[in-house]
Amino acid sequence: MKKQLYVLRDILGTNQKVAAEIKAACEERGILVLNLMSSPGAGKTTLLEKLAERLAGRHRMAVIEGDIETERDAERIRAKGVPAWQITTGGACHLEARMIARVLPEVSPDIDFLFIENVGNLVCPAGYDLGERLRIVLLSSPEGDDKPKKYPKAFLTAQVLVITKSDLFPHLPFDVERAKSEALELNPGLQVFVISALTGEGLDDLTAFLVASREALRAGHA
Amino acid sequence: MKKQLYVLRDILGTNQKVAAEIKAACEERGILVLNLMSSPGAGKTTLLEKLAERLAGRHRMAVIEGDIETERDAERIRAKGVPAWQITTGGACHLEARMIARVLPEVSPDIDFLFIENVGNLVCPAGYDLGERLRIVLLSSPEGDDKPKKYPKAFLTAQVLVITKSDLFPHLPFDVERAKSEALELNPGLQVFVISALTGEGLDDLTAFLVASREALRAGHA
Repeated sequence: MKKQLYVLRDILGTNQKVAAEIKAACEERGILVLNLMSSPGAGKTTLLEKLAERLAGRHRMAVIEGDIETERDAERIRAKGVPAWQITTGGACHLEARMIARVLPEVSPDIDFLFIENVGNLVCPAGYDLGERLRIVLLSSPEGDDKPKKYPKAFLTAQVLVITKSDLFPHLPFDVERAKSEALELNPGLQVFVISALTGEGLDDLTAFLVASREALRAGHA
Repeated sequence: MKKQLYVLRDILGTNQKVAAEIKAACEERGILVLNLMSSPGAGKTTLLEKLAERLAGRHRMAVIEGDIETERDAERIRAKGVPAWQITTGGACHLEARMIARVLPEVSPDIDFLFIENVGNLVCPAGYDLGERLRIVLLSSPEGDDKPKKYPKAFLTAQVLVITKSDLFPHLPFDVERAKSEALELNPGLQVFVISALTGEGLDDLTAFLVASREALRAGHA
């Protein structure tokens, strides 16, 4: 019988305490945990579909989906052959660590990546650590290049910025250099990727970065 | 000396009580109050700029802007010759009626429209009445046609749905009929407008609807 990734025990602890337990349980098994946050419709689920295609056969991933309502996102991920759990918050505007802790006992310990897709909201999720090693904020180009300073917390607390829908650049008043420089002024340590799920731009670079980050985690715990 | 639109007194009341006071104070003067909500970057400020151009010379408007950080939106509105007040919530993810009540004593009673632009967030603002007669939810076409059922509360509680950025339809996997029918399934009473700030599509219809709504309000209070 396989050992469990996580044994549920402390969902009454503070968010930070539960998040620390999730992080420890996953990282000691070499699992890279990622928390994806953005506005609704910035392309989080589509990015996960594309990463599933690129990681298939080489790496194992699982996804926890957070939404106010509907199972739609988990169904899209399962259609890619990736195990996915849907958390529907029933109105709550963000995920909390205890919601992840309730799902985690069902997740296989034999995975390399655990992606958590947060509720579509560029504000509230930034206040809640879910035990992730990498927080990825997505900025959809149609939202405009002025968003980092208007919604600073997600950009301040992330390690990775992914600017999405670059295929729309020719049709938008969007200055990608302005968006990058605003974000980097807030948080100079951000790793920035510019992608299009439609054309594939940037997806290989982002995949390589995630694989290397997971190798670094494993090496650190070897 | 002009009479004041609103005398600040009860900011410690419940949100619903303060909202009711704001509504009464504005409506007895024939002022139509509108609460605009959407994800970040769906085009709320741009829509207000376009409405300012169309209403100029015929109707008087004022704008209260809500943002986490920055005065950018109020500055854009003022550049159109429209009085605007910026509320920066400093992290809070929505406006509350008491924040409006604090600004309202500065607003002229001689206006026809008071637009309140909420914080860019499709989730939390829907829970807070600001005293509006019309709640307008904007859905930006790049966000996708599946959003109404994933973020139902804003669509359930609005009277008006504005689908924005129609100029991008040819470049997007966005089915406008699906978006409309999802929203109307949730809320059959929604008035739906499809607009593009770039091409001007739909803006005259929306302006006419707002003017007629304000006439109806005034007639009801005559």
